[in-house]
Amino acid sequence: MLGRSYEGQNCSAARALEVAGERWSLLIIRDALFRGMTRFTDFQRSLRLAPNILAARLDGFVRDGLMEQRPQPGRPGQSEYVLTDKGRDLAPAVIALTAWGDRWAAPQGPPVVFQHQACGGEITQQTACRGCGELVPAETVTTRPVPEAQSAP
Amino acid sequence: MLGRSYEGQNCSAARALEVAGERWSLLIIRDALFRGMTRFTDFQRSLRLAPNILAARLDGFVRDGLMEQRPQPGRPGQSEYVLTDKGRDLAPAVIALTAWGDRWAAPQGPPVVFQHQACGGEITQQTACRGCGELVPAETVTTRPVPEAQSAP
Repeated sequence: MLGRSYEGQNCSAARALEVAGERWSLLIIRDALFRGMTRFTDFQRSLRLAPNILAARLDGFVRDGLMEQRPQPGRPGQSEYVLTDKGRDLAPAVIALTAWGDRWAAPQGPPVVFQHQACGGEITQQTACRGCGELVPAETVTTRPVPEAQSAP
Repeated sequence: MLGRSYEGQNCSAARALEVAGERWSLLIIRDALFRGMTRFTDFQRSLRLAPNILAARLDGFVRDGLMEQRPQPGRPGQSEYVLTDKGRDLAPAVIALTAWGDRWAAPQGPPVVFQHQACGGEITQQTACRGCGELVPAETVTTRPVPEAQSAP
């Protein structure tokens, strides 16, 4: 996990990055979300990550409520790491980051496609307006501070 | 910028994190995207970031094509940093990360709301299927490797 250096930053993106912004963290979450991984050895094989770093990340996820550590069925003494609702809810951010990488950093084309289990169609992230219901280009989006939250400690 | 430790990871999320995953980077991009910031001093005031770190991040964005460095109008010798299409295209990822933070890490409620300039409505990121056109919950999303890309060097 990252340090808590955003205390003065009353911004949810900053807080999300505190929990999931470390460079390996979203990749571990991605493997858990879309490849169904739960075991230490599977994450390690997939990401080729030093065991001490992986262990620290998984412990951090458990501490921050993104994963639950459970006994592994049929393997006494071994744990599995299962995403909570809070962890699973990172899916749109992972999909959006991947889509950006597909467009701008995948010269051989997207290596992996997100697909809808029900129909096999390709998944996309859309920016939409709850007010008028339209899909909106990002350049027509602006931010408005919420005064109550801004004055909170 | 992060090191290139994902070379073996043929994954666009990994590549996106290489460019924009460092913890300050998305916050700088956020300020540029949704607060219209272009000046070193404005980013520094907003993020309270050490000048050498901010300078390194902005240089990295220019090198990676997320921003263009231009002379600041009316201020000889000073630069501004303007997002390119590649940089602006990170908006959905920033919005999705912020939405997650609003739901799970904002006990006093969302401090900032993304709104549609045209109607003032609240902005949301939707996960949708290009095949059937439906909005889909993330747990019905799976990944499918693209063989050509996987076998590429």
